[in-house]
Order: sequence, then structure tokens, then C-alpha cells
Amino acid sequence: MRPQAVRRAALRARLRARELDGLLVTDLVNIRYLTGFTGSNAALLVAAEDDDASLFCTDGRYVTQSAAEVPDLPVVTDRASARALAARASWLGVQHLGFESDAVTVDAHLALDEAAGTTELVRAPGLVADLRAVKDAVEVAALRTACAVAEAALTDLLAAGGLAPGRTERGVALDLENRMREHGATAPAFRTILATGAHSAIPHHTPTDTPLRRGDLVKIDFGALVDGYHSDVTRTFVIGPPAQWQRDVHELVARAQLAGRAALAPGVEVVAVDAASRDVIAAAGQGEHFVHGLGHGVGLEIHEAPALAATGTGTLAAGMVLTVEPGVYLEGRGGVRIEDTLVVGPDGAESLTRLPRELVEV
Amino acid sequence: MRPQAVRRAALRARLRARELDGLLVTDLVNIRYLTGFTGSNAALLVAAEDDDASLFCTDGRYVTQSAAEVPDLPVVTDRASARALAARASWLGVQHLGFESDAVTVDAHLALDEAAGTTELVRAPGLVADLRAVKDAVEVAALRTACAVAEAALTDLLAAGGLAPGRTERGVALDLENRMREHGATAPAFRTILATGAHSAIPHHTPTDTPLRRGDLVKIDFGALVDGYHSDVTRTFVIGPPAQWQRDVHELVARAQLAGRAALAPGVEVVAVDAASRDVIAAAGQGEHFVHGLGHGVGLEIHEAPALAATGTGTLAAGMVLTVEPGVYLEGRGGVRIEDTLVVGPDGAESLTRLPRELVEV
Repeated sequence: MRPQAVRRAALRARLRARELDGLLVTDLVNIRYLTGFTGSNAALLVAAEDDDASLFCTDGRYVTQSAAEVPDLPVVTDRASARALAARASWLGVQHLGFESDAVTVDAHLALDEAAGTTELVRAPGLVADLRAVKDAVEVAALRTACAVAEAALTDLLAAGGLAPGRTERGVALDLENRMREHGATAPAFRTILATGAHSAIPHHTPTDTPLRRGDLVKIDFGALVDGYHSDVTRTFVIGPPAQWQRDVHELVARAQLAGRAALAPGVEVVAVDAASRDVIAAAGQGEHFVHGLGHGVGLEIHEAPALAATGTGTLAAGMVLTVEPGVYLEGRGGVRIEDTLVVGPDGAESLTRLPRELVEV
Repeated sequence: MRPQAVRRAALRARLRARELDGLLVTDLVNIRYLTGFTGSNAALLVAAEDDDASLFCTDGRYVTQSAAEVPDLPVVTDRASARALAARASWLGVQHLGFESDAVTVDAHLALDEAAGTTELVRAPGLVADLRAVKDAVEVAALRTACAVAEAALTDLLAAGGLAPGRTERGVALDLENRMREHGATAPAFRTILATGAHSAIPHHTPTDTPLRRGDLVKIDFGALVDGYHSDVTRTFVIGPPAQWQRDVHELVARAQLAGRAALAPGVEVVAVDAASRDVIAAAGQGEHFVHGLGHGVGLEIHEAPALAATGTGTLAAGMVLTVEPGVYLEGRGGVRIEDTLVVGPDGAESLTRLPRELVEV
């Protein structure tokens, strides 16, 4: 059975538990997860009872592609894909049809409701997101590759003297992105953050024409997109010998990051993981300078469930892939973030990113 | 007055015509259009009566950035930006508050409705999209630059022998994207389509490791993102002397593309523009091989209103910026698409993309 069919089977069990007769999936990332389809217009009807009653819909542009990517489902061809499947659900006598109320707009819902006739549309947010949070073996392998590609690119960049003073943030970021492509990335996983000197204190800095200078902290937050899966890693370097404050901040963040990684295990609450790392920074009197959550799930999207944050909910499970990325940002001076992408195993987490975590002088 | 304030004034007139007291804008691209803000979390309350009553909201990460990008509106700091402004609208006694029902999800609407208290949330889709369809001078200038950057990159690529046989689709696409960055693009406007040989018959082909070969049609659909604005242009080349069928298909598409461009003028129905081009292809017996719409608006998004398609609605106005991109796709053999980005003027359209449109042999 294709992994996508296994995922649909897991979804069907959840639909039956919710007493839904089916789920109308319209979020394209969820559709990719459940079918393998990578085009830009599709809808999927997952029948709760039996996958033989499930239907896939896309438009005429994707006839060839959908036959190749979705060989195990019947394909309906209709440009108004979601409405077409809602109408079919109605003809088939489906009574309670879940829809992704966290993705469907108010207007789209009105149109679906009209198409669905006597079928009742039931709010069913997050069902596929919950499944996606726990990665299967195929996904972990893809994420492992995405991490390896990113790290190979940064290793190459460093070996080529890529962080030499005088190069610009923008130039180095582009160089790094190209090296990721050379190693097999489809694209960067997100806009590379390359921040030198005082810019390193801006958590999400967009690269500028500012040159790297001796004495700068250089924060690099980047990742590769491979086969639809994203990696996410951050390392912070120093150009030339570090000042004592730079050593201190880096050492503090490294300790906090280790504490966060060590806290990852099945059954642990996400708030506890955030706290384990945050407490290290707070105890050093720097709590106010760690201004974001500790991490997030990563997979077919760069940010997905679960959120590792003080406001997060739920517990970890084996197979979740998460980032752990504490930072300390001193406005006007500089900042440090250290981030890995890790997979939760039965006894703890394995980091899929393995570049050295100590402060590297370039 | 900043162009963003002029745009808000135009929106206020439309709100008053709809008897709305304000609009809660949550779509980030619309927020960028109306304020200049480029961050990833924001909401905007545009008051119908007076811009002095309008409010902008973002979270703590964007305090510095919002002060710089949105100097002419008061900034509320709250992570739950849309709900915060819905609550404020309620405190301020707003009665009828429009919301973007074509962008707000069913679940987000429930949360907004709760926050809005006695304020009535009214479906108000497309108000900002309609404004955005007609570009102001600042926007046309940005689009002109985005087009020039894309064309300079392709010109460089051709001059450097970039379409030499043996190079791969993926390699050429990356080369072209890097040249766009060298010319000042923030990023490609979308994933470059580079399709050689039989792949050129796939309208939206993703580049592979397939090498370019003598005798291939090579279809290149690409664009540059500059200052938030997108360009979109397609040219189809032939490697070596063209076969007669390649000449014929290219000549047909060029004629259809010219007919589409010539049909652009204020007051013309979008369906008439689509028909003007499509009829040329249909008359040659190739109608079934032109499987998509003729074009689309382009601006802060790569696809925006209006759609130039048989299913489109409405008429053109001066200041609209649109693509015209007919194609003929012969499965297993190859396809041709020719696309320009044009701005509608009082008497017709000016093409912002100017690369030669005849079949170029490389």
C-alpha cells in the first residue's frame, strides 16, 4: 500500500470516531500528504467507510500529472474541484461531511454548502494537521535528506571562505541558497535569514547589502526544500576572535538549546519543553531577550503542528519532527540563535542537523 | 500623502457606498497594499468616515518595522491582531464592520464574531482586490522594473549561450533565477517553468534533469519579484533549425497573442479579450490544445484580479496590468506559449515586456 493510502486509513479511523461519513479536504498541502498530488488545484473526498468510495478531483491541466501522482484513486475532472466533490457527496447520500473549517473561507463555505444540497457540512479543523504532526518513515527519510542538503551547503560555504569580511548579507545568502540547490534542494525552505553585527539581534532579519565585518556575530537561519519537505537550522558564527559578551551569550544559548533538546520525549507537554529551555535563559537574567517560542513542527510546511511555546497545547509523540531554536537578542549589539531539526524517538530525540553547536570563529 | 493613504481614501469611498462603517482587513497582501507593512502578522481597521479613526495592529516582533513602514497610522501591539481590532471596533461603537469573507476562514470568523461583541460583521469580499486591479503610478513603475529585471536576465542568459544542448532544465532555470537576482530581483516571481522537447507540451512543467537537445522547443515562463511586485513573461525558443510544425505552431500562437494584446482597452469585457485570442487558435483547428485561460492580473500577487478567461467577469479599465499568454500544447511533441505583461492605457495596452516575439533559433 502506498504511504498515502496508509495515511488515508488513519484519517478514516478518526472520521469514524467523530461520526463523520467523510472529510472534504481542500488544503493543498493536506491533499499532497494524503494523495501525493503536487498541483495547484484539487479537492479530495475521503470516505470514512472505505477508501474505494474516496474521490480525487482536479482540473484539465492536471490529467496526466494526476494519473501519475494519484494512481490509487478515481479522478474527477472539474475546475471547481471542491464544489464538484461536495455535489457528488450529496448524490452519494453522504449525511455528515466534515470540512476543513480552519482553511475554508466564509465565502467558499457558502458555495460548498449550496453544492452539498442535503449533505450537512460539519466543522472539522485540524484532523489532517494532527496526523501530519507524526511523521512516517518515508517522511523522516525525506526530512533527513533535506537536513543533510542544508548542512552540506553550509559546510561548503565555510570551506570556501564564504563568511569573509566584506561580503554582503545578501551575497552570502544567495551563495548559500545556490549551494543548497547544487546539493539537490528544489528551493530554499524559506527566505534565508543572514544577519551580521547588530542585525543579528533582529530575530527575522531580511538580508541587506550590509557587509560582514570583523568582530560581527553572523546568524544564519536557513533550510532546504527537498521532495516537498523542509529543513530548518540556525548557527551563529563570529568573524575573528569573539568578545567576552559574544562568548557568554553564545554559551548561554547553547546551554538553553541543549536543555530544550534533552526535554524532547514522547508524552512530554510542549509547554514543558519550552520551559526547560527558557528557564535556562531566564535564570541568567536574559529572559526578556528571548522573544519568541522555542520551536515548531516541520514537514511539508516550514511551520506546522505542534508549536513548542508557552502558549502551546498538547504533548509530544514519537515520530514528531520539531525545531528547537532558543535565541538571545541584544538590540543594537547582536544576537545568537542555535537551532536544530529533531525527530522524537521512544527514548528521546535524534537531531537530524549535526553541524557543530559551539561558537565557531571564521 | 503616501500612496497607501490615497488607496485607503479610495477604499473609504467604497465602504460608505456599501453603508459599512469600516473594513477589517486581514489579508496580508491587502494590508501591504493599504499600509506598506511587509511583516507576517497584522490586521488593519479602515474607518469609513475618517482615516484618523483607522488602526493598525501587529505583534511585538514588528514594533520597529511597523513604525518605519506604517508611519501614518496608530499601531496597536497584539499577537491576536484581527481579534484585537474587532474588539476595539466594538468598544468604539462601530455598527457594521465589513470583513474579507473571501480570505477569512470559517473558524477565524467565529473567533472574530466573538471578539466583535455587538458590532455586526458583514461579508465584504473583493473590495481591496477591486482597487488593486487598477494600478497607480507607483505600482506601474514597480511592475516596469520587475519586467525589465526579468528580461535583462533572459537576455544575459541567451548571450552567454545559456540554452546550449546538454544543459539541464533545472540547471538553466537556476542560472536564469540567479541572473534575475544579480539584476536586483528579491526572488523569482514564481517557480520558473523551463520545459524542453516534449515537456514543453506540459503547461506548468517543473524543471527536471532532462538535458536540452537539438531540435527541442524550449518554453521558458518566468518572472522577477521586485519591491513586492511580480513580472510574468514567457518565450519559446528552438534549438537549431525549427521543423515546419514548430514554425507553424509558433506562428499561430504569435498571431493569437497579438490578437489578445490588440483587444486590450478600457471598457472591453474580459471574455471578449479571451475570445479574441482563442478564436485565432480555434480557427486553425487547434482550440482543444489551448487548455487554459488567456491571462490574469499581476501585481503584489502573481495571479490577481481580473482573470482573462472564458469564465471571467467584468470589463477592463485603464491602469490594469495583465498577462496575455495563449499556448498550444501537442502532447508528446511539444508546445509553445508566448506571454507578455501589459498595462492598459486609455487607447490600448503598452507591453512592459519587450523581448522579441518571433521564434528565435539558439
